Amino acid sequence: MPATQHTIDGKNFTATEIGSFERLDAYSFTHELLPIAMEGKVFLKSILGLTSAEISFNKLPPNASMPFHHKHQRNEEIYLFIQGNGEFMIDDTIVPVSEGTVIRVAPEGVRCWRNVSTEPLYYVVIQAAEGSYGAGSNIEDGLAVKIPVVWPSGSSGAA
Amino acid sequence: MPATQHTIDGKNFTATEIGSFERLDAYSFTHELLPIAMEGKVFLKSILGLTSAEISFNKLPPNASMPFHHKHQRNEEIYLFIQGNGEFMIDDTIVPVSEGTVIRVAPEGVRCWRNVSTEPLYYVVIQAAEGSYGAGSNIEDGLAVKIPVVWPSGSSGAA
Repeated sequence: MPATQHTIDGKNFTATEIGSFERLDAYSFTHELLPIAMEGKVFLKSILGLTSAEISFNKLPPNASMPFHHKHQRNEEIYLFIQGNGEFMIDDTIVPVSEGTVIRVAPEGVRCWRNVSTEPLYYVVIQAAEGSYGAGSNIEDGLAVKIPVVWPSGSSGAA
Repeated sequence: MPATQHTIDGKNFTATEIGSFERLDAYSFTHELLPIAMEGKVFLKSILGLTSAEISFNKLPPNASMPFHHKHQRNEEIYLFIQGNGEFMIDDTIVPVSEGTVIRVAPEGVRCWRNVSTEPLYYVVIQAAEGSYGAGSNIEDGLAVKIPVVWPSGSSGAA
């Protein structure tokens, strides 16, 4: 982990800074079940104490492909493409991906992806238990808290 | 929804393109429980058929603040800051946010945030049921699928 990583813990939150996306090369991930170290990948569940999902930030180098296909047992995955150009294969379908492409993959989907350009491909992967969201919508779970919005320093934030 | 929105459905996936982040202004969200339309926000759960989380892409204009604080009943939220500069308040703590800042907020946390610059603030919000991830790690849920990585057109994707 880069020496500049900064994490703050509070009663109801944890905040961390992974740094700019172009510096994701500073991170690599190894695990006994993986044959190779994966560069340009950082997982956040442990750092943030997440209880509902795993999240990773990823940088795939120019013209690189993931070297294997994979699927899941229980978890749904969502791939959010932030920058770059690639291709994403699910079973027999290939989908072009670029900034703003978002893909849900069911556990049983067999997936692989690659970078098709000379620039890095940046993306976020979210993994969470299939079917766990519940019937309520996001709006119904949220509650407005009726305290005034006041930002210190009397700055220009509109209230 | 912009006319250019393109969604593909397959047996084990749904893929959509929300367009570039700077064009998020094309989206707005209204709901009977909200007093105002929220511009520059698009939700993905319904579009993608997500079962594990709600995800939104967001653009907060220069110097704008969210006009209210909120908390949640059941769902954990994770805020991923993609570009720009802002401040994020949880209860009594204010955290500066910029590209690569990621914040977990527990349901009971009272949160508000603002853009403190003259450029837009782009961020993703993930909402999922607290405690739903389960004991297994992301690596343990994934299964490598032993089929060769072959990309059509004989292109330069490394295998």
